[in-house]
Amino acid sequence: MISFQTSPDQYKHWKLSIEGNVAKLSMDVKEDETLAEGYKLKLNSYDLGVDIELADAIQRIRFEYPQVRAVVITSLKPRIFCAGANIYMLGTSSHAFKVNFCKFINETRCAIEDDSRHSGRRYIAALNGTASGGGYELAIACDEIYLVDDGNSAVSLPEVPLLGVLPGTGGLTRLVDKRKVRRDRADVFSTLAEGLKGMRAKEWGLIDDTFATSKFQAAIDGRVAQIVNLHSDELSQMNGTGGSETDSLRYVGVKLNPLGVETTDDGREYEYVGLVLHRDKRYADLTVRGPKAELPSTPDEIQKLGDAYWPLRAFRELDDALLHLRVNEPEIGLVCLRTEGSIDDVLSVDATLVANRDHWLIREIILQMARALRRLDLTAKSFFAMVEPGSCFAGNLLELLLASDRSYMLNNPEEAIGIAVSELNGGALPMSNGLTRLQSRFIAEPEKVHQVLNVDAQAGGRRFDTEAAEAAGLITFAPDDLDWEDEIRLAIEERTSLSPDALTGMEASLRFAGPETMDTKIYGRLTAWQNWIFQRPNAVGEHGALTNYGKPTQAQFDYKRT
Amino acid sequence: MISFQTSPDQYKHWKLSIEGNVAKLSMDVKEDETLAEGYKLKLNSYDLGVDIELADAIQRIRFEYPQVRAVVITSLKPRIFCAGANIYMLGTSSHAFKVNFCKFINETRCAIEDDSRHSGRRYIAALNGTASGGGYELAIACDEIYLVDDGNSAVSLPEVPLLGVLPGTGGLTRLVDKRKVRRDRADVFSTLAEGLKGMRAKEWGLIDDTFATSKFQAAIDGRVAQIVNLHSDELSQMNGTGGSETDSLRYVGVKLNPLGVETTDDGREYEYVGLVLHRDKRYADLTVRGPKAELPSTPDEIQKLGDAYWPLRAFRELDDALLHLRVNEPEIGLVCLRTEGSIDDVLSVDATLVANRDHWLIREIILQMARALRRLDLTAKSFFAMVEPGSCFAGNLLELLLASDRSYMLNNPEEAIGIAVSELNGGALPMSNGLTRLQSRFIAEPEKVHQVLNVDAQAGGRRFDTEAAEAAGLITFAPDDLDWEDEIRLAIEERTSLSPDALTGMEASLRFAGPETMDTKIYGRLTAWQNWIFQRPNAVGEHGALTNYGKPTQAQFDYKRT
Repeated sequence: MISFQTSPDQYKHWKLSIEGNVAKLSMDVKEDETLAEGYKLKLNSYDLGVDIELADAIQRIRFEYPQVRAVVITSLKPRIFCAGANIYMLGTSSHAFKVNFCKFINETRCAIEDDSRHSGRRYIAALNGTASGGGYELAIACDEIYLVDDGNSAVSLPEVPLLGVLPGTGGLTRLVDKRKVRRDRADVFSTLAEGLKGMRAKEWGLIDDTFATSKFQAAIDGRVAQIVNLHSDELSQMNGTGGSETDSLRYVGVKLNPLGVETTDDGREYEYVGLVLHRDKRYADLTVRGPKAELPSTPDEIQKLGDAYWPLRAFRELDDALLHLRVNEPEIGLVCLRTEGSIDDVLSVDATLVANRDHWLIREIILQMARALRRLDLTAKSFFAMVEPGSCFAGNLLELLLASDRSYMLNNPEEAIGIAVSELNGGALPMSNGLTRLQSRFIAEPEKVHQVLNVDAQAGGRRFDTEAAEAAGLITFAPDDLDWEDEIRLAIEERTSLSPDALTGMEASLRFAGPETMDTKIYGRLTAWQNWIFQRPNAVGEHGALTNYGKPTQAQFDYKRT
Repeated sequence: MISFQTSPDQYKHWKLSIEGNVAKLSMDVKEDETLAEGYKLKLNSYDLGVDIELADAIQRIRFEYPQVRAVVITSLKPRIFCAGANIYMLGTSSHAFKVNFCKFINETRCAIEDDSRHSGRRYIAALNGTASGGGYELAIACDEIYLVDDGNSAVSLPEVPLLGVLPGTGGLTRLVDKRKVRRDRADVFSTLAEGLKGMRAKEWGLIDDTFATSKFQAAIDGRVAQIVNLHSDELSQMNGTGGSETDSLRYVGVKLNPLGVETTDDGREYEYVGLVLHRDKRYADLTVRGPKAELPSTPDEIQKLGDAYWPLRAFRELDDALLHLRVNEPEIGLVCLRTEGSIDDVLSVDATLVANRDHWLIREIILQMARALRRLDLTAKSFFAMVEPGSCFAGNLLELLLASDRSYMLNNPEEAIGIAVSELNGGALPMSNGLTRLQSRFIAEPEKVHQVLNVDAQAGGRRFDTEAAEAAGLITFAPDDLDWEDEIRLAIEERTSLSPDALTGMEASLRFAGPETMDTKIYGRLTAWQNWIFQRPNAVGEHGALTNYGKPTQAQFDYKRT
């Protein structure tokens, strides 16, 4: 079983160091500390375990070191930054594992960009040596790329020429869409196994600058100092120079403690999230329990409560449960999303979050909730939301219902069953395509978004009973008491009987109506092509390029093209 | 060998009839008239041959019957509109053929929407019976869908539940992006083998209306009359009632005669297009020859010249050559694009086209050129443009260079070698994503588009010699006389040695920077997922759903999902 929980004291492959307003993430992969047997992580190549540490480090910087303004990503290995995903690991992995591996790496890269865009931390890739394949893809997820000019170090994407697959974690899309490298140059670069060095790489826009070995460290330090100086006003506040006690507390980080989880044969129990696996029926129940009443409502109190604060804890648990389902429970094809708790208490949390969204901690909490929900959108399993008495699909938890492929809401006038919207449904938790889930739902009738969001502030949120929810178009089906059990059972049986591949492609198409962004291009277009290629005999067949990499035998291709 | 040329008198499966301003396209598939052995085209199911006729009919309506304002697509079979792609044909086809099949069908559907959007013809799907799978996808490419309410007829997308593949020709994307069906309803509909009938289909937005059998024909006729009446002013002009001799000629169609093509073992010679196949080296030379000097410059003269007019003939030939390469020459992985002729003469044609772009025929010619160029963008082979003395990559033909993955331009000051832009490069020939190829090229520096397009009207177009072209960023490489031969040879050898699948995925990612549209979502996201699924054991393996369709055996799935 692969665990996604770690912490800096457990890192094997990365060193996280904080100096004032600068974080340094140094890659120093231990070649024998692999997640599986059969390969060595040479030359700072990585497997999923290496990226789990990186994802954790980025998350921790955001919560534990809010004063950080610049993050330098570099390597402790001489002459090599990072050689990308380990090829022997890929060559010996199942198709499902390869897909999961690429998706998680993509999410970590997008998390870097999310931090940069929304929290203003600047990511600097300090390439002290060659960055190839996934190594360059990590660099290109950063804001700025500097490459040492030592006559040898290069940036490269050798996947196409050497391995017969794509750079699978966003490289091609970011080449032309983020760095806007001219498409013919991107074509040349992506077919050039040895890549490009120094000035040519700069001229083509692949890096931002290049410095001789002797000047490299000073140049990076200089650039980092510039970034920190740009923020000096903000930082003097952050560092508590002057201001009240509240101000000095303001930028103290919040420690992310390990999530307590009790594991049984057929499930996982976190504090607020429960997962029950029905493996024989290939579905799971995933329940999120709402907050307790009267949670703190000021940032100071929340900061003191730290990671025990419900929205942070519950969505970290949800995130972990989703990753567990993806990687450790591949046979589970359908997840029934459920909630338990008080709608009032969820809406009260949302009111606190909205009122304090300019505070760094509240902002980070909301951004983390948004990332967990996007993880759900991008999970290649079906999701059905089940609304029953005692559930609390309100505000932030209503997003679970809106993210689902379908929803079922019991229609029983004798019971109190409701869902509710809050201001958080209006924009704070966007999908990868930039739309809210309400906008996505009502793409045919945009005015309905406003109608539904027409929140009555006094009541703390607009509520819908089953008939109102159905009339508003918020739910899919509203079976009555007599039909409920049979209808749910049949829906589950039917869904889990269908081709898992066809469902994956169907859901990837139906979940993302409307605009596309760089993120959705990476998860849609690029990932789909990569998945296709990963399955092809030309990559993974007996004579495929991935199979034969590093062997004395050469790849032999079926050259058909269309 | 599959031929893409046909004409109404040769149609086996469609009847095209024109009455005044209305065209009627009636599907009546002959089950034994198949392109290959081993299947029967029952229930108006189709193979590539059926769609080649449809594509031809749509093209002909645009050129031969410009007065048509409404196109009704219906079926001559009782109780069935169209059952979609023939499953047994798919089950027995190679992966490459399935990919080509879906792509061509997609292009035909997009051609319907192109006609509707740019030429204002309204397409009415008159579903006199069930439209399932590709049958419904044909309907959803139309502007309006009417379904008979006979207690039995339905619309459906049974691919996921019955076949374990996707509706592969745009259905899922058009469901949520064009008809904007709510995503949870789209999910239910796309997993419901029997589909939806009458009022429910209307309520969910899958059709526009439904009429009882006895009233169906009258309702369609009524709607068509409405459309024609909307255009009555325009039509009285078109029909030559009143006005000069010029006016009455104005809306006389231009007949599309068969393309003359001389076929040899290693090539094809059209009038303006030559194709030389180097099969042992897996590449082809595709040469477009420019126009003769002093072509007519008024619409009337052009109309009299008809389909012999260079831009129409040359781009129809280019289109046919591309389709031939895709379907009949799968082992050709690289196409070297070349041109021969006078830059002046190409620019002169562009000046005529631009000056008369409001004339229906000139508009249709430009739109046809744009479609042929998009066919090139979407061809899964590499394209290199080769600029040598005597070539004429100018204006409309410069698009060939801009569409290429790379370009090579000889740098020899002793020879006259040039390329040139014209106003046509400024917007008339957009890619599927809505950008011009110049915008796509200079996505990092949008101001360069204007610089390059800064046409000197006196000179009839701005020209660039090799050094100027390189400085302007219009070409990739400019080898000199000494290096040229070796460099080209090595580039070709290298390209054709790489994994064809990896190149396909790479090119699909690098060619389409920037925005995505419904078209690019269909060719990118949806097609890539479909290609992936088409390759999976769950579809095409021994126990796959496609393999076992219609057999007593049942599909058995590997249920892993991520």
